Amino acid sequence: MPRPNTASLPTHEGLGERFRTARALTEALAAPLSEADATIQSMEDASPAKWHLAHVTWFWETFLLRDHLDGYALYDARWPFVFNSYYEAEGARIARFSRGMLSRPTMGEILDWRAHVDRAMAPLFERAELAPLIELGLAHEQQHQELLLTDIKNALFRNPLGPAMREEGAQSAYRQPGGWHTHPGGIARVGHQEAGFAFDNEGPAHRVLVEPFALSSRLVTNREWADFIADGGYETASLWLSDGWGWVNGEGIGAPLYWHEDEHFTHCGWQARDPDAPVTHVSYYEADAFATWAGLRLPTEFEWEAIARGQDGEDAAHDPTAGNQLDSAAPPLPRGSAGLFGDCWQFTRSAYLPYPRFKPAEGAVGEYNGKFMSGQFVLKGASCATARGHSRASYRNFFYPHQRWQFTGVRLAKDL
Amino acid sequence: MPRPNTASLPTHEGLGERFRTARALTEALAAPLSEADATIQSMEDASPAKWHLAHVTWFWETFLLRDHLDGYALYDARWPFVFNSYYEAEGARIARFSRGMLSRPTMGEILDWRAHVDRAMAPLFERAELAPLIELGLAHEQQHQELLLTDIKNALFRNPLGPAMREEGAQSAYRQPGGWHTHPGGIARVGHQEAGFAFDNEGPAHRVLVEPFALSSRLVTNREWADFIADGGYETASLWLSDGWGWVNGEGIGAPLYWHEDEHFTHCGWQARDPDAPVTHVSYYEADAFATWAGLRLPTEFEWEAIARGQDGEDAAHDPTAGNQLDSAAPPLPRGSAGLFGDCWQFTRSAYLPYPRFKPAEGAVGEYNGKFMSGQFVLKGASCATARGHSRASYRNFFYPHQRWQFTGVRLAKDL
Amino acid sequence: MPRPNTASLPTHEGLGERFRTARALTEALAAPLSEADATIQSMEDASPAKWHLAHVTWFWETFLLRDHLDGYALYDARWPFVFNSYYEAEGARIARFSRGMLSRPTMGEILDWRAHVDRAMAPLFERAELAPLIELGLAHEQQHQELLLTDIKNALFRNPLGPAMREEGAQSAYRQPGGWHTHPGGIARVGHQEAGFAFDNEGPAHRVLVEPFALSSRLVTNREWADFIADGGYETASLWLSDGWGWVNGEGIGAPLYWHEDEHFTHCGWQARDPDAPVTHVSYYEADAFATWAGLRLPTEFEWEAIARGQDGEDAAHDPTAGNQLDSAAPPLPRGSAGLFGDCWQFTRSAYLPYPRFKPAEGAVGEYNGKFMSGQFVLKGASCATARGHSRASYRNFFYPHQRWQFTGVRLAKDL
Amino acid sequence: MPRPNTASLPTHEGLGERFRTARALTEALAAPLSEADATIQSMEDASPAKWHLAHVTWFWETFLLRDHLDGYALYDARWPFVFNSYYEAEGARIARFSRGMLSRPTMGEILDWRAHVDRAMAPLFERAELAPLIELGLAHEQQHQELLLTDIKNALFRNPLGPAMREEGAQSAYRQPGGWHTHPGGIARVGHQEAGFAFDNEGPAHRVLVEPFALSSRLVTNREWADFIADGGYETASLWLSDGWGWVNGEGIGAPLYWHEDEHFTHCGWQARDPDAPVTHVSYYEADAFATWAGLRLPTEFEWEAIARGQDGEDAAHDPTAGNQLDSAAPPLPRGSAGLFGDCWQFTRSAYLPYPRFKPAEGAVGEYNGKFMSGQFVLKGASCATARGHSRASYRNFFYPHQRWQFTGVRLAKDL
Repeated sequence: MPRPNTASLPTHEGLGERFRTARALTEALAAPLSEADATIQSMEDASPAKWHLAHVTWFWETFLLRDHLDGYALYDARWPFVFNSYYEAEGARIARFSRGMLSRPTMGEILDWRAHVDRAMAPLFERAELAPLIELGLAHEQQHQELLLTDIKNALFRNPLGPAMREEGAQSAYRQPGGWHTHPGGIARVGHQEAGFAFDNEGPAHRVLVEPFALSSRLVTNREWADFIADGGYETASLWLSDGWGWVNGEGIGAPLYWHEDEHFTHCGWQARDPDAPVTHVSYYEADAFATWAGLRLPTEFEWEAIARGQDGEDAAHDPTAGNQLDSAAPPLPRGSAGLFGDCWQFTRSAYLPYPRFKPAEGAVGEYNGKFMSGQFVLKGASCATARGHSRASYRNFFYPHQRWQFTGVRLAKDL
Repeated sequence: MPRPNTASLPTHEGLGERFRTARALTEALAAPLSEADATIQSMEDASPAKWHLAHVTWFWETFLLRDHLDGYALYDARWPFVFNSYYEAEGARIARFSRGMLSRPTMGEILDWRAHVDRAMAPLFERAELAPLIELGLAHEQQHQELLLTDIKNALFRNPLGPAMREEGAQSAYRQPGGWHTHPGGIARVGHQEAGFAFDNEGPAHRVLVEPFALSSRLVTNREWADFIADGGYETASLWLSDGWGWVNGEGIGAPLYWHEDEHFTHCGWQARDPDAPVTHVSYYEADAFATWAGLRLPTEFEWEAIARGQDGEDAAHDPTAGNQLDSAAPPLPRGSAGLFGDCWQFTRSAYLPYPRFKPAEGAVGEYNGKFMSGQFVLKGASCATARGHSRASYRNFFYPHQRWQFTGVRLAKDL
Repeated sequence: MPRPNTASLPTHEGLGERFRTARALTEALAAPLSEADATIQSMEDASPAKWHLAHVTWFWETFLLRDHLDGYALYDARWPFVFNSYYEAEGARIARFSRGMLSRPTMGEILDWRAHVDRAMAPLFERAELAPLIELGLAHEQQHQELLLTDIKNALFRNPLGPAMREEGAQSAYRQPGGWHTHPGGIARVGHQEAGFAFDNEGPAHRVLVEPFALSSRLVTNREWADFIADGGYETASLWLSDGWGWVNGEGIGAPLYWHEDEHFTHCGWQARDPDAPVTHVSYYEADAFATWAGLRLPTEFEWEAIARGQDGEDAAHDPTAGNQLDSAAPPLPRGSAGLFGDCWQFTRSAYLPYPRFKPAEGAVGEYNGKFMSGQFVLKGASCATARGHSRASYRNFFYPHQRWQFTGVRLAKDL
Repeated sequence: MPRPNTASLPTHEGLGERFRTARALTEALAAPLSEADATIQSMEDASPAKWHLAHVTWFWETFLLRDHLDGYALYDARWPFVFNSYYEAEGARIARFSRGMLSRPTMGEILDWRAHVDRAMAPLFERAELAPLIELGLAHEQQHQELLLTDIKNALFRNPLGPAMREEGAQSAYRQPGGWHTHPGGIARVGHQEAGFAFDNEGPAHRVLVEPFALSSRLVTNREWADFIADGGYETASLWLSDGWGWVNGEGIGAPLYWHEDEHFTHCGWQARDPDAPVTHVSYYEADAFATWAGLRLPTEFEWEAIARGQDGEDAAHDPTAGNQLDSAAPPLPRGSAGLFGDCWQFTRSAYLPYPRFKPAEGAVGEYNGKFMSGQFVLKGASCATARGHSRASYRNFFYPHQRWQFTGVRLAKDL
């Protein structure tokens, strides 16, 4: 469990409503899927949609109902074995790449379980001491909303027939303002420092020293990436990290994931690429090689956060709701906003490591973030698949440098 | 296409009716499955049930309708890529272990395709020259009926919840008469030599010389296999072929597939094992080690066939319909029949190789059997999952020595 | 230990002399190698030359001296762990692919061990009851002479500098007489049936029935193989067994092992290929595909043996010493002899399986042959690297269908 | 090539002498090895001793002689292919795990090459503009001296006979003074800032902000590690990073590399472990788990460097020559010195990433450090195998978190 800023906790008012909204959104996201769509697993990194629906429910049932509601009996005592993700303290569990074997329980059984758990949760919203844990559960549910979308995209992509799970809607063209956010260097305060929920890995807030730098006000586009390819980017060893070069050649990589000729694969099937849209589905290795090719570099997580906090003297247009596409009831957003959030997660050159004095929480939820602090890189921002309000300036997403099935893109930086 | 005995071809009368019966049985076998059950693939050797439904339909559409019905247009020109199994002459196709990604087309779409193809087939039953090819298609459909059952069993087994696809029915106890079928040795005529359909690999009929031997009149039982285990069979190197010993230790094998304590996994979920039932789901390596432990050996395919043809002077009770469990409309059979067919396929110590003067057929269907003639062993008989009337004395089933997800068992032999 | 024909055993006279000659030849073969050459292991299938020198010595020390010489103490009690090859009954041993880590013991230490064992063996040649075991040891030593040559060839080939271990000598041109050995079909007696040593897998002698056939009087040549390549042989799926096609594509195979442009790698380094020389270093998959391309087939082991025994009414020129190149003191042999022995081992389409009533010997030497009877194919004849007098008509060499680092070639057959 | 501080370059005086000393030391280190010892490669991470001798020579020949000595002709034009390590700009090269196939060239040929290159280098020491590149070459030679020792240790360890390459000498007992080096926090200046050579990855020097902390004045001992094991450290998931837990279970790790019962493997063969000696040959995963178990943490690279620079107000006894064991002519050092250098490299919790404004050099030597900046962790200090004078406060060694064949150990830290 994250170490909440107890002094500034959100009141528990509205928690129940937010819970119900989040739970309904998860189900709405899965609604266009057939039961078969929701069952398949395309790779070890990804999970079936049905499993996501069940796993988040296991989280509520385990850490809230089982641990904090007197007399609560597990809905099905065999299910923790199949719906626990990686919590060693919660015992043995199904091998990760066997999640795709779970044709049972059925979607109907899982939806019944969800309804049962949702009802059972009702009395807990009144208990202020549980609010931090419920906030964690909400954030967790939102993370799996995004994973559900990126995982099913990967699964449908693996089907040679290229099926769609949504109709293509009318879309405005991308407009990204050019220019640079500049920072004079100096001491910046980073990490979670406001009221409201944050994951344990966002704290403690602390000071860091940054050198003068500039951060691009826009994301790298598909057009620029096509230029990189045309210039032999994927065949030029000197642009790449050694591990990246091994990955490119070992895996036969020559373009972002989901690209094929002038199209790319989307939730709406194969579609023409918009050259002005931000490139997505690139790995850290690719992002770094592109930056080298461009004569620039990736920002550190601290540089990115300093700009996001408006410490550069400009209006950084920090709107963490921008770009959020999940909630179809919200008004449509212009694509390519001036802010740092939305469209895609942005790789930083910062390894995902603990902040000074970081301590993971006690108990099983202490496994949430801390144990992943080796070998991964921090991403900042939010993507088109991130739940509205989920991210913030201190948010630290993290993936391995070869992974690219998330909506990952590139925002460049340079020294001043 | 196999080289049919054209002199003794079945008339084409009744072909249409047999076609419709076989096609209906395939669908009936899949009926208890949810769409998710029918979509998952548990290993590279196995295919999703839905894929089986589609693949056999592709076979009819390709080799009968496309090749022989003027003006026939493919139902969906993209589907051959995903439903061709291994016919190189028919072009590129989906990687074998990606069949489990085919959440689309849906079961409904596949059933519509099946109905379309079934209707289109009608005029072809009148054309005598197509009868051999239609017979091949029927045999092919029946083989996939068995695979559908063994593949879904494996998939449900991989689910830690151990789901069932059928209700357990009342079952009579196994009664296997003991004793030996003896053969004095000499020249035996083997291979397909009767009227009726046979695969190309069953011919040409030819003579072989066999030494005096005896073949057990019953199958090795679960009780005997438990004795083998209790006697340290899986830990005794001297009982095993070298490759088998590597397999046992590399894979951590210590019992037949699907065994766990006193239960085994079945289409009806986990069930108590009947000690008097034939052991099933063992590999060639295990069968050979067991025979060595028992001081006996496996028969050759020719010995088995010689007995099946009644050349031992006894009544070998050759009833190729015995043991067939697929057609629930047929009267229930006693389990553990005196014949050689039914319950399980029986490993022989004969490698799967061409008979003298064997030539595969011209064209794509020539890939049906001949190209698999390396590294595999011949199995004889039929299993509880084999379609009634599908097998015969000359039938040659074949699998690699480590495979055991079929209903494979052991019938012992000895020298006289 | 093989079941020798005790009635027709060679007297033990001359055994000691043959022992010393064989032991000296092994050392002479390794003499051109540096200690580093003799230490490296290029793949799991191959062993270092130094290991061969030691392993055969372990065989003598274990099965003769330890078991049969009163009071013999092991030279070094730690060495059986590293020089036992695959005898489970002799206990644990070093992983096969770690043999290349044995920089110690040194070559000098191993040669000292050899001399010690050779001296200790002296009294055993007088004991008639040990003669069969000593014959086995001699045959074993000869097999490892051939392996030493083929393994070091593979190791030197893996060195990009293409080093040689011998000077190229003057060589006569190949002359292979064309034509066919024909056989009218009928009962043939096969298996070991003469006086003298044979491995257990060559017996018992027994009768088989063969159909009328012809066996080529010559081997397939490099020129013919180049034609096969030029005709797209390696790109034509219909010529290949399914496993072979997977191997060709998975491994990127497009020519025999050791071919590069117009050269091939030899013990004398890279050399121009003689188009009239027999092709060597092909796998069973390649041999079978070539035969299919040529409209012919591979012989069975019984057909080959029947011809070798002169049962075809012609003079088959059975000279098992032909082609033997190891003993440089022997007069040079014409290359491309009319006989079936020499130049290269010849793949048959017979799987390596037990003969009727075959029983391996008791004890550890019973592991010599029998436990390898799955998944491999029989090769007949002898190669340029086989010790003179080592092979015979009933000899059964065996390898997996993808292996080709031995001197393996092709002799075609056809039905009559 | 690193960006040297040109203002403070060492004069080129003495370079020639230092070159000859370093070259001689490399050969002295390999002298106890047989040619077979020097040829084998135990794993992909390690290289044969002979290859190290050749590779460093390739470095001098390529980047100094070829590039800067008019008229120099390559000693053997085929050798760059086999002795280039990872310089993409220098063209194709042998696969890394095939270095163990290089039984040729012989050790004698390589020593001849070394002598030839050494002679040819003579005129270059007079050219001041080459001094930075020669310094790089010297540092490179020293790095491979350490690798030669750690790689051959691994190779000899893989031999079940446990051979030694040195005699065990008399050794003083370890004496490590306890206590903590404390630091009040604040701005520290880190990175290379003195006269003299440094690698490019040590710069530019820059300021960082550190929080108050303490660094242990001693290394974790074998005794403490044994306590960790006895307390179930390797079986307790909550102590481990997720990737580390996967590694421990996937590889079956239960102790430091080279431990077996109460002994550990050394260059002098298997020896009893001194409980008071620093633990060595642990991975980052193990170091991190141990720190967690101890209720402490690993230091950052900046904390370590700040203490090493004496910024803690104490006398940090910064003696970069301490612990250096390579030069046997130097007076023996007390073991377990109070300084931070010697005995073993110390893992930090800092990922190996570029410093602000870091730019790799132009040309092939720009591949020296920068392209490895993903997935690895920084180690500080020096080990018993590091050349005297090679390390310094700003030195950044780096390895992947699972690697442990170097002399890697643990120095703990804590927050104040």
